[in-house]
Amino acid sequence: MFFASDNAGPVHPEIMRRIVQANDGYAMPYGNDPIMDEVRAAVRDLFEAPQAAVYLVATGTAANALALASYVQPYETVFCAQYSHIEEDECNAPEFYMGGAKLTLIPTDNKMTPEALEAAIARRPHGGSVHMAQAGAVSITQATEFGSVLTLDELRALTAVAKAANLPVHMDGARFANALVSLGCTAADMTWKSGIDVLSFGGTKNGCMGVEAVVFFDPEKAWEFELRRKRGAHLFSKHRYLSAQMAAYLQDDLWLDMANSANAACARLTAGLRNHGVQMVHEPQANMIFARFERGTHQRLKAAGAKYYVTDGDLDSGPADALLTARLVCDWSMSTDSIDQFLSHF
Amino acid sequence: MFFASDNAGPVHPEIMRRIVQANDGYAMPYGNDPIMDEVRAAVRDLFEAPQAAVYLVATGTAANALALASYVQPYETVFCAQYSHIEEDECNAPEFYMGGAKLTLIPTDNKMTPEALEAAIARRPHGGSVHMAQAGAVSITQATEFGSVLTLDELRALTAVAKAANLPVHMDGARFANALVSLGCTAADMTWKSGIDVLSFGGTKNGCMGVEAVVFFDPEKAWEFELRRKRGAHLFSKHRYLSAQMAAYLQDDLWLDMANSANAACARLTAGLRNHGVQMVHEPQANMIFARFERGTHQRLKAAGAKYYVTDGDLDSGPADALLTARLVCDWSMSTDSIDQFLSHF
Amino acid sequence: MFFASDNAGPVHPEIMRRIVQANDGYAMPYGNDPIMDEVRAAVRDLFEAPQAAVYLVATGTAANALALASYVQPYETVFCAQYSHIEEDECNAPEFYMGGAKLTLIPTDNKMTPEALEAAIARRPHGGSVHMAQAGAVSITQATEFGSVLTLDELRALTAVAKAANLPVHMDGARFANALVSLGCTAADMTWKSGIDVLSFGGTKNGCMGVEAVVFFDPEKAWEFELRRKRGAHLFSKHRYLSAQMAAYLQDDLWLDMANSANAACARLTAGLRNHGVQMVHEPQANMIFARFERGTHQRLKAAGAKYYVTDGDLDSGPADALLTARLVCDWSMSTDSIDQFLSHF
Amino acid sequence: MFFASDNAGPVHPEIMRRIVQANDGYAMPYGNDPIMDEVRAAVRDLFEAPQAAVYLVATGTAANALALASYVQPYETVFCAQYSHIEEDECNAPEFYMGGAKLTLIPTDNKMTPEALEAAIARRPHGGSVHMAQAGAVSITQATEFGSVLTLDELRALTAVAKAANLPVHMDGARFANALVSLGCTAADMTWKSGIDVLSFGGTKNGCMGVEAVVFFDPEKAWEFELRRKRGAHLFSKHRYLSAQMAAYLQDDLWLDMANSANAACARLTAGLRNHGVQMVHEPQANMIFARFERGTHQRLKAAGAKYYVTDGDLDSGPADALLTARLVCDWSMSTDSIDQFLSHF
Repeated sequence: MFFASDNAGPVHPEIMRRIVQANDGYAMPYGNDPIMDEVRAAVRDLFEAPQAAVYLVATGTAANALALASYVQPYETVFCAQYSHIEEDECNAPEFYMGGAKLTLIPTDNKMTPEALEAAIARRPHGGSVHMAQAGAVSITQATEFGSVLTLDELRALTAVAKAANLPVHMDGARFANALVSLGCTAADMTWKSGIDVLSFGGTKNGCMGVEAVVFFDPEKAWEFELRRKRGAHLFSKHRYLSAQMAAYLQDDLWLDMANSANAACARLTAGLRNHGVQMVHEPQANMIFARFERGTHQRLKAAGAKYYVTDGDLDSGPADALLTARLVCDWSMSTDSIDQFLSHF
Repeated sequence: MFFASDNAGPVHPEIMRRIVQANDGYAMPYGNDPIMDEVRAAVRDLFEAPQAAVYLVATGTAANALALASYVQPYETVFCAQYSHIEEDECNAPEFYMGGAKLTLIPTDNKMTPEALEAAIARRPHGGSVHMAQAGAVSITQATEFGSVLTLDELRALTAVAKAANLPVHMDGARFANALVSLGCTAADMTWKSGIDVLSFGGTKNGCMGVEAVVFFDPEKAWEFELRRKRGAHLFSKHRYLSAQMAAYLQDDLWLDMANSANAACARLTAGLRNHGVQMVHEPQANMIFARFERGTHQRLKAAGAKYYVTDGDLDSGPADALLTARLVCDWSMSTDSIDQFLSHF
Repeated sequence: MFFASDNAGPVHPEIMRRIVQANDGYAMPYGNDPIMDEVRAAVRDLFEAPQAAVYLVATGTAANALALASYVQPYETVFCAQYSHIEEDECNAPEFYMGGAKLTLIPTDNKMTPEALEAAIARRPHGGSVHMAQAGAVSITQATEFGSVLTLDELRALTAVAKAANLPVHMDGARFANALVSLGCTAADMTWKSGIDVLSFGGTKNGCMGVEAVVFFDPEKAWEFELRRKRGAHLFSKHRYLSAQMAAYLQDDLWLDMANSANAACARLTAGLRNHGVQMVHEPQANMIFARFERGTHQRLKAAGAKYYVTDGDLDSGPADALLTARLVCDWSMSTDSIDQFLSHF
Repeated sequence: MFFASDNAGPVHPEIMRRIVQANDGYAMPYGNDPIMDEVRAAVRDLFEAPQAAVYLVATGTAANALALASYVQPYETVFCAQYSHIEEDECNAPEFYMGGAKLTLIPTDNKMTPEALEAAIARRPHGGSVHMAQAGAVSITQATEFGSVLTLDELRALTAVAKAANLPVHMDGARFANALVSLGCTAADMTWKSGIDVLSFGGTKNGCMGVEAVVFFDPEKAWEFELRRKRGAHLFSKHRYLSAQMAAYLQDDLWLDMANSANAACARLTAGLRNHGVQMVHEPQANMIFARFERGTHQRLKAAGAKYYVTDGDLDSGPADALLTARLVCDWSMSTDSIDQFLSHF
């Protein structure tokens, strides 16, 4: 009953197999391994973007921070949703990599709205006052940190606002796969065809060991990114083991299969909870749920060994029927048994 | 005939086995995995340092930059040898992590001398002029970037100079194992018993996939380091796979066995080259050689597929008997066959 | 009719006289001039703080950014009011000087409330999650950017919240003098006796040429500040001309006289506007007004040469009776004539 | 007998007069004052550069650090002479402003040579190894920190090396005026006609209160510079007092007259010392001398109240005839009496 995060599950055996397979003799270091050529081709193919620049790093925070730093100057600001990962969970890594640029938070409890984004940008116009942080970029998380998925229309409405202000758009795709299978569109549809300039393409949360691709649909920033990656100490000497993960991840739609499994597990969990009358804070659209249930139930689950985060409510005192909010995440390896066992405590 | 670097060889099968073994079910992320407890205990035991703070990162540059940043303020400077890795090969990562602190280069073509270090520090005394970068720390590479190993006496002479100036001392131990087996002393002898405050304890160049430990012999900086590691985007969610590498590396002296293999291969190569009258630029003491041989020989080796870097001399023109300097590195997996094949071209 | 800002008025003749007087022969540079000794003594005396460390810089942004950087680590965050100067008007200078630390905005349209501050800090507890920016400091502007003045009780309620969380408190006192004469308390009351650790003590907006003192009530950070000031390029070689300004400013209560003049001018303007039925957005308590009046009136004022900023509303189109919000600031030199002339257009 | 530095002398009365004159009523802040228009025109005229972007800051370190930061990326390095001011006397300000870029020191005891510069750049070719700091810019001090002046030929030989490597060239002209009158060429000759891209045009050391112009001969970086200046907290609200200094400085060749006075004083001092058999370490070509004289003489001068720095030798012990090296600087206000009094002790 491990619902704490999709970053705690095992590596898919097929990915592990490919890592082991890569472990043969010498290979040129620092991204010059032949498997990286394969990865680059596969990513370009997947995104229908033959010119895209493709790089691998080992953490999602590195992907986000380096991608943003490639576009944003230190005297600028990045517009992002109020509770986005880059604001909440990266301990100032984006600010560090951007040389002290700011994040401007768009008020929302889940998805950013175009109206709110437009209003925020309007306060910091290009070529405006020298005293203000200048508009630098927009960053959108897909799927969101609350388990929602922006429709293509929603996404395009946001990027249209950014483009109207001449701002590049970054997508934090730590759960890109979960969003994609939820929408059922193509990878190109959800990125450059919808106005995304640079993507953090997550692998780690979806069955890899630790690999994320940064994909620049316009390769102009490629060399700068390479230098920034090295300067950030994120260039791996034994790079082939990053390449091997990503190669296996993309092969034969493994990545989509895993995302489908995670989303299906989440749907089963959602349905089961609703059967017990549990309310969802947001409509679950990928592999994450924010559910409201009673403190007493929480205590039973805890005692039974269930793992998850409570994001709102008093865990330690108060009446047994006080409602808490729990975040429940399903990874690719989540079993039906775990879910049913979890539900049995309601 | 791959002598380009020890960062291009395969992972030792025992380490790979342990990675695969770790791939079972869920594990708490971000360094809270149980294998990390094992690693911490093993490192403390190895260094006879029960209070040491022990952390894992995936690259040597990250280990160095984060270790230095924990001690050095942005208005300070780090004293290091002229051609040290942190100066030459890390694309300003130390400066980035230290917030713009400086590196002050101690002139030398190999080992730093206490006299040169003392002279450099004397120009930037503590509490001296507010206009100058202040003395911040000393960084020593062991084994050096030229394949030499500082004796314990040499090491202690350097750290004594640092201590006299109240400066903490960092050791870049990317090839710590190779130095240790060369000296035949204990890990404690070569570190805190010789005045080292913080160590980058390399695994990647010696048979791991990508893992380095940062060891603080005084744990005072522990929490700051954790925050700086996260902010640098170097905290792994699926941390167990870093832990597994380091656990296997340290188990049953595997790390020492691998270093012994690499050094022995290097000794065989050195002896063979000397038999052919080849001069060494520095006396090889670990697993790296700087050898002077003729351009014609180089061209034969290149044609035969040998890989290594030429660090001095004109590769592309000039007389066939012009001398070049080649850097030749042996990793743990270097075969006798490769060496003998290499020597056969002389 | 210049109400655009108090940073556009002339230098008080007495201050200018002292600058000219200082221009005699050689003086030791970089803060070692004898006038600085006088300034240090005067500031300590004024604040009843014989141990205070006192430094001069030339801009308010430098004072704020350097003061904060002396307390806040790059992986931390500063809590400040939503529309504070450090967030809105310093083009990421605080983030730059703090090495990429964050500002966390406390929602408010004027004064920060203790409840909102407490709630924000509670989300980032000390020793909490390594993933979050850590609580670093609280920054309070007095008088606020909206012309309000926190009472000593309000101030102490805020610093009590900060102290309960072990956070140092910075006061942005760009308009310290205007607040002080408004409250009628002592400088010690409004600072260290109310929990302030470090103060940006403004001179520029109140009749100086360009000088701000940074006052550390605990001198522990003194040497670090000196190094950060130099590294920020804010240490003046011909420092005596900064010293001379501050010496004259403090002499014979000149600074209080000027603040009284500015506040009195503002009170006259407020009363006059209210006589014409003009509403104030906030109750004016120092030398700044946010007044709501008609677009038609605005156009008449503009045509007559009045200078001020419109912070809300459409200047260029819409009905003549649409209400705009205008910010009107009075400096020490504001004349009764200017005010009456301004009022004559209503 | 104040020979410690040219940054400790008084402001020229004509400059002070202009500051006082500027103190009339309100003026638009932040560089929008009308005197700045006058300054911009005068600088463009002086440099025969009608497109030049011209900005004022208050310290030489700010001018250097901001000028370099406008051209150099954080993963790059600036080539400069070994003992240049940006390396020795700015407490990491250049590194801070450049986001952690490096300075690469060209070995020399005075002027940089083209050969040494070329060799240093050759080690860091454009598009070379991603592991190395990339070549970013060249910075040249004119007059040098040792009182020498590069001839136009020497200057052009250096910039030719930079241009061949596609590197922009910065000139630290803290003593630009002293060099210019020494060479007797035009300001255009000594800058853009000799390959300089951006100039720190010093005023402070030559009779101003605290003002330096940054002159971009290509205005492409203008807006970025404005943002970086603000972010560095170097944008003055009461900017008119910076403008007034520079306006008076340039009017009627006052700046050249002052430089001529300083250089003439230095020449008189040099001749006098040579008459007493004193050796110069470098040939004095501007307003600074490095002279070798006996410790006993030094003690007599000290006792008589002479102020200067001893840069080499033991001040406190040793035989009376041991030679020390003294740095002696003459500013515009240095009197013949002071010089003769100084010489009388030999």
